[in-house]
Amino acid sequence: MSIANTGSPSPTSHLFNPLFAQPEGSPIRELFPYLSRPGMLSLAGGYPSPGLFDAEGLQQAATTALQQDAAASLQYGASEGQLPLREALAELCASRGITCTPGDLLVTTGSQQAFDLLVKVMVAPGDPVLVEVPAYPATLQTLKLAQAQVVSVPTDEHGLDTEALARLLAQWPHARRPKLLYTVPNFSNPGGTLLPASRRAALVALAREHGFAIVEDDPYGELRFDDRCEPSVYETGLAQCGSANPVVYLSSLSKTVAPALRIGWMLADAQLLRRCAIAKQTADLCTSPLAQNIAAHYLRSGRYAPQLQKSCAEYAARMDALCSGLEAALGEQIRFVRPAGGMFIWAQLQPQEGDHEALSRALFAAAVTQGVLYVPGKAFFPADAAKQAGLCMRLSYAAPTVPQINEAVERLGRAWQQAVLSPIA
Amino acid sequence: MSIANTGSPSPTSHLFNPLFAQPEGSPIRELFPYLSRPGMLSLAGGYPSPGLFDAEGLQQAATTALQQDAAASLQYGASEGQLPLREALAELCASRGITCTPGDLLVTTGSQQAFDLLVKVMVAPGDPVLVEVPAYPATLQTLKLAQAQVVSVPTDEHGLDTEALARLLAQWPHARRPKLLYTVPNFSNPGGTLLPASRRAALVALAREHGFAIVEDDPYGELRFDDRCEPSVYETGLAQCGSANPVVYLSSLSKTVAPALRIGWMLADAQLLRRCAIAKQTADLCTSPLAQNIAAHYLRSGRYAPQLQKSCAEYAARMDALCSGLEAALGEQIRFVRPAGGMFIWAQLQPQEGDHEALSRALFAAAVTQGVLYVPGKAFFPADAAKQAGLCMRLSYAAPTVPQINEAVERLGRAWQQAVLSPIA
Repeated sequence: MSIANTGSPSPTSHLFNPLFAQPEGSPIRELFPYLSRPGMLSLAGGYPSPGLFDAEGLQQAATTALQQDAAASLQYGASEGQLPLREALAELCASRGITCTPGDLLVTTGSQQAFDLLVKVMVAPGDPVLVEVPAYPATLQTLKLAQAQVVSVPTDEHGLDTEALARLLAQWPHARRPKLLYTVPNFSNPGGTLLPASRRAALVALAREHGFAIVEDDPYGELRFDDRCEPSVYETGLAQCGSANPVVYLSSLSKTVAPALRIGWMLADAQLLRRCAIAKQTADLCTSPLAQNIAAHYLRSGRYAPQLQKSCAEYAARMDALCSGLEAALGEQIRFVRPAGGMFIWAQLQPQEGDHEALSRALFAAAVTQGVLYVPGKAFFPADAAKQAGLCMRLSYAAPTVPQINEAVERLGRAWQQAVLSPIA
Repeated sequence: MSIANTGSPSPTSHLFNPLFAQPEGSPIRELFPYLSRPGMLSLAGGYPSPGLFDAEGLQQAATTALQQDAAASLQYGASEGQLPLREALAELCASRGITCTPGDLLVTTGSQQAFDLLVKVMVAPGDPVLVEVPAYPATLQTLKLAQAQVVSVPTDEHGLDTEALARLLAQWPHARRPKLLYTVPNFSNPGGTLLPASRRAALVALAREHGFAIVEDDPYGELRFDDRCEPSVYETGLAQCGSANPVVYLSSLSKTVAPALRIGWMLADAQLLRRCAIAKQTADLCTSPLAQNIAAHYLRSGRYAPQLQKSCAEYAARMDALCSGLEAALGEQIRFVRPAGGMFIWAQLQPQEGDHEALSRALFAAAVTQGVLYVPGKAFFPADAAKQAGLCMRLSYAAPTVPQINEAVERLGRAWQQAVLSPIA
């Protein structure tokens, strides 16, 4: 049950902060009503596959947490996080080649909260923030509510275009210098791209030269389909800058264990981390110590690595199915880069002619009629750059099964033919 | 392990939002280091008694959630909350005499998040917000970070002084009108007071007349020691104003089930609720669906009511012990109102002479030496009104046992003698 947007008068509407006078919700969450239509197949969500949740392992972890550490698992905890989880997460970071101690790390209520806290602590209204586009919509919304000035950085098939960024910084058109740059270097959302090591080094050098911080958001890095793996931007920053590392690293257990734990974390320098912990005191006091202790026991149980391996194999098979299906159904009319990991394909349709915006609307309407959902590209652009989205779309292969994906792409192919034939529909 | 406030240079410190240049953490959380001293007895925290956690019942609820609803308990959920929990919370509200449906209710990550979201949605920098003082420190901190103008409303032994509020509103000294008024009408933190029905009605009438919203924060209302019970301000608002009810109701399972679930909720009009749900999307996407499903199963299990009864009896006994102990140890030198519920006693020491601020510091130092902790009163006042705190202190009887309370008040008595004899210590 969602909360209705009734037109009825509200006793509090004269009191709203102007920022919330006419707010827009998440463009992805606005697709929810379509999801419940009978027979609908969805390539829209960024949800992990429920078939890959290790419910048994998590139930054992919950029982252990509530039998062995009942008091700590049920009481308030420190805003910084529970020590056993911080230790387990520091080890997880080490397995990703990231050097840190439990004290370098703040546990957050999902990595969404980590970014929200960072923005609170660093960004004042009007401060410029660099964002690779297309970008995760909740990142754009967080910056909009913080009244940041979002400055788009272009991307290509290798992710953030550091040469374009260098040119932008050299001819910086704004009065204030940029505070932050946001990037998802590993299997980005929505681009699906993996940023090469050389660009990671160039990015750190630019941050150092121009005095901004880099937010490296890494929820997907472990969901790899082959041996391709690049050093983290955080570790690149440590190597280049030592204790003056300008990189803040965010990650999450949502994509590899379960979103419902709402466990994310942040690695940052001590002064920044302390301020984020203070901001967290007013946000939610602490992340659920029960969820933290369940996560800590789970990470210690030995079940994480084999479960991750299973997820990688399953997502690789689904990605294969989606790529082959798109090629079969749409051939030369669709372009995309085959991702080496993560959950997303960013695809662009190539009509021979026609108004892209009208076609985009017609395609979405036809897709709903055919019974398939995707996220139209404009959700991933700042409002003033929505036209750049053209006929792009984000397709996720994470939640549907291979047979569902096969059927979904056939429907998408039919929807495209329908849209091209009658784009005004 | 907390995060150290090192003096070392930070690579990001030039980037901090000025609001966070020199931030102060929670004055209560700053007492944590003293807690770990050997033999320390604490009357400081607002933590419920760990002995009153129903770990067995919660473990059963967790097992049910992970066996019966594994997919929903591990996946992302709607920002508004899981329907089974919203239904259970609407029933809980009904048992408190509050009329609502699941759709009137937003689940939040503790009621701290509910207040934080409300402030985001309603308060722009410089907007005046009325707060009963003394007040819960995290409320003051949330308003400070929102750059609200905090306007203190005095309280007495019956809670918020509505006559003083009426005078303040009649001669309003600020350019902008107040947006919100924050109150804890049931067994307030730190006052321990219960607001009479007549004042609740007067408060609603003032909100209606002057066009502000009332935030009724009610974490303690069910922790009653006798039959005294007043209608909620929310229900009073409904009765007086119908659909133009200016009251927003916040509550939490933290004090009656377990803080670690981080389950709070908000009742508000549809337009306000929808905006808070949108603000929640960038705060943490959703409250842990696992914690929500555990809470829903627990509330349905029939264990809540008997557990609450046990908590009320135990807290009443501890409150009795603390009141008797304070009278025995400090006699005429201490004044306080015996609370009819909740977790706190707000006490004021009455020295025959001396500088109150110096005595306050000396008393805290002597108490630490004697091995007892409390929260000095100034934590509950806005910074510009800290002097009003005088020799007040908040004492909680919730977490220590009766023998610990008896010993703690003896130590407090000795600390007071020591402070009065050498106030410069």
